Amino acid sequence: MKKKKIALFGFGCVGQGLYDIIQQQNDLPFEISKICVKDPNKTRNLPGSVFTYDKHEIFNDNDIEIIAEAISDDDEALEIVKLALKHGKKVVSASKKMLADNLADLIELESKSSGVLIYEASVCGSIPILRTLQDYYQRSSIDGISGILNGSSNYILSKIIDEDCSYTTALREARELGFAETDPTLDVGGFDASNKLCIIARHGFHMPLKTKEIFQFGIRHISEHEIAFAQKKGYKIKQVAILQKTKPNRYLAMVIPAFVDGHHPLYKIDNEYNGVILQSEFMGDQLLTGKGAGSHPTGWAMFSDLLAITNGYRYNYYNNDPAGSLPDTDFAFNIYLKCTSDMVMIALDFKLLEDLSPGTAYRFVYGSVKLKDLLKFRSSENFKTTFITLDLRYLLNKLSGINEKKGIVKAMV
Amino acid sequence: MKKKKIALFGFGCVGQGLYDIIQQQNDLPFEISKICVKDPNKTRNLPGSVFTYDKHEIFNDNDIEIIAEAISDDDEALEIVKLALKHGKKVVSASKKMLADNLADLIELESKSSGVLIYEASVCGSIPILRTLQDYYQRSSIDGISGILNGSSNYILSKIIDEDCSYTTALREARELGFAETDPTLDVGGFDASNKLCIIARHGFHMPLKTKEIFQFGIRHISEHEIAFAQKKGYKIKQVAILQKTKPNRYLAMVIPAFVDGHHPLYKIDNEYNGVILQSEFMGDQLLTGKGAGSHPTGWAMFSDLLAITNGYRYNYYNNDPAGSLPDTDFAFNIYLKCTSDMVMIALDFKLLEDLSPGTAYRFVYGSVKLKDLLKFRSSENFKTTFITLDLRYLLNKLSGINEKKGIVKAMV
Repeated sequence: MKKKKIALFGFGCVGQGLYDIIQQQNDLPFEISKICVKDPNKTRNLPGSVFTYDKHEIFNDNDIEIIAEAISDDDEALEIVKLALKHGKKVVSASKKMLADNLADLIELESKSSGVLIYEASVCGSIPILRTLQDYYQRSSIDGISGILNGSSNYILSKIIDEDCSYTTALREARELGFAETDPTLDVGGFDASNKLCIIARHGFHMPLKTKEIFQFGIRHISEHEIAFAQKKGYKIKQVAILQKTKPNRYLAMVIPAFVDGHHPLYKIDNEYNGVILQSEFMGDQLLTGKGAGSHPTGWAMFSDLLAITNGYRYNYYNNDPAGSLPDTDFAFNIYLKCTSDMVMIALDFKLLEDLSPGTAYRFVYGSVKLKDLLKFRSSENFKTTFITLDLRYLLNKLSGINEKKGIVKAMV
Repeated sequence: MKKKKIALFGFGCVGQGLYDIIQQQNDLPFEISKICVKDPNKTRNLPGSVFTYDKHEIFNDNDIEIIAEAISDDDEALEIVKLALKHGKKVVSASKKMLADNLADLIELESKSSGVLIYEASVCGSIPILRTLQDYYQRSSIDGISGILNGSSNYILSKIIDEDCSYTTALREARELGFAETDPTLDVGGFDASNKLCIIARHGFHMPLKTKEIFQFGIRHISEHEIAFAQKKGYKIKQVAILQKTKPNRYLAMVIPAFVDGHHPLYKIDNEYNGVILQSEFMGDQLLTGKGAGSHPTGWAMFSDLLAITNGYRYNYYNNDPAGSLPDTDFAFNIYLKCTSDMVMIALDFKLLEDLSPGTAYRFVYGSVKLKDLLKFRSSENFKTTFITLDLRYLLNKLSGINEKKGIVKAMV
């Protein structure tokens, strides 16, 4: 049988991983016929004839049925995916930010074209989370999705807590190992995990979540106080993404550093590993764990999408949220707050429960805060000199009480 | 659209779970038209007209396209599945022992009939492991699959170790909660996990593994010595199923109690939860965790299969093992052995490394043993007064050395 022709856009970390995997397989129903890259002057390990620098050469080639897009420029990625769909091509994408920002438009474009768009590699590297949500959870009532969705941040936090590494050294290592985004602010600022949460929300909650509706707080400004506190208490600090129904048409969506104790299943998800917990009525809790970053793990997710799309696979989209759910802004939970001024506590309408640093120049305090005050606080000048760590156990206990009737959000294992 | 008609065989724990789930869904493409049960005199919560006691009534009804089989009598289950395939019906089965014992025949029968057979519910309750192996790992070179595959044994061991429960009390609880097989010997003897390992082997290794090729050792005769040792060392005892390539055309297949330390991802998989670790070249390690037993979790796996089979889903079978791999019988590893006589150590050709009970009437010893001697020992009279616990860390380190080149079998998290 004649092999279907694929064009690969991008030959960075993920693109090369995908290329490696394809080269090592026999009897594939497809082959890479062209690789489109930006820089004609860069030295590459392949013959020059396989590369092109003109995307239109690919779109105008009717023999190319499938596009694998793994580039770091999001505007360019969007244009490529749109053009590909307009040309009726099948598209596999790994560009999480581009997808999170444009998912509604792309879904509409796909529905009107003869093309197909799938994007497993955009979320949690090697973990087949979108496939599982689509094929196994499609009719399940999911109450909550939480987890570690960014391999780079998790790697940095593991090094800091477990190996007493400095933030700078840990970040450099994460970049060298190919775990970090081209712009690492996306990782450590919580933006990358927010993008993934939006994509997961579309497939798990059938809900069009936008990144601006997520409270996100990065790990860049982590200080010795949180690290010392975690080590003293036997906690780890994890960048946790949470999307949780709190009541009808209301949800809680956050990406936030959290103190995680040894009883929680995320405690043991270290380094570049990701872990996603799915809470549903009939199945209880499930945890999927695997490498969330890296050339081959993410390349495999793209490879698997290529096989699927060749076999006619596509996503089905529903809208389970016709009423248009909103963030539950009055929802209160407990955080650890490190700040340099009492003004922050006032601005946050912070209910102090315990002062953990009496008599010092900075404040390291434990107390209750409402989502709406955190959302407002994002535009404050003090935001950058503050660090917030979630008390995950308190939150889970509170959610567990709310959902007691349905028996969800119990300590998983 | 006219709904497809389903006949459900069996209305026990899993059958009722499936029924509940279907009743709570809207707009399904199918409906249950008949439930075939054995005992006409049993009181049931549904109108009598939905039940039938004659399977031929179902096979001769051309309106019934799909069979959901969840009965505990394996001979009867086999006959039902064979008859259904011969009648060209689509079949969803949960009968692990029946499937493990007859998989090759059933695959052949399916290939010759116009029927389809899938069976996600037969392995690990709610965890979509077969779907993941089929759709995501199909072309991956899997080096090892290990995990906790039996919810009932795991529940019993959790209660014994964590809550100082007696074996008898824990077993009774597992039965009351619906986690145990109708014949609990299947669970606690390691047979149920062996059956699941055979089914997983077919889809993960594309290899026709038989239960007799698996060394299985149950948890029935666990003694105060192992329990005290685990508690002293901070270990848990888990019934671990292992299928691992050791060299070309050789594998290690065991279901065995193991001491698991806090660093291993299976340590935290407690109660009725199951966990499966998949080790592959490009993705590294993945762990899937979820409820491995219970009415609704297992019912959901059947429900999900019903949706899939309605949409034309079927398994693809390959044979990756044309040479016919064999157990690596010379493979040696370390175990903890509790026995009442030195004859056991001699019979096992046991290399003593440490005597953990000097000066007592029984022997509790640590040392090395070969797979072939364990396989032989199964027919020994002393088998029943012996307890064997695997040193999981030692085994993983040894396998890690063997597979170092490929980078697999590292401590996962």
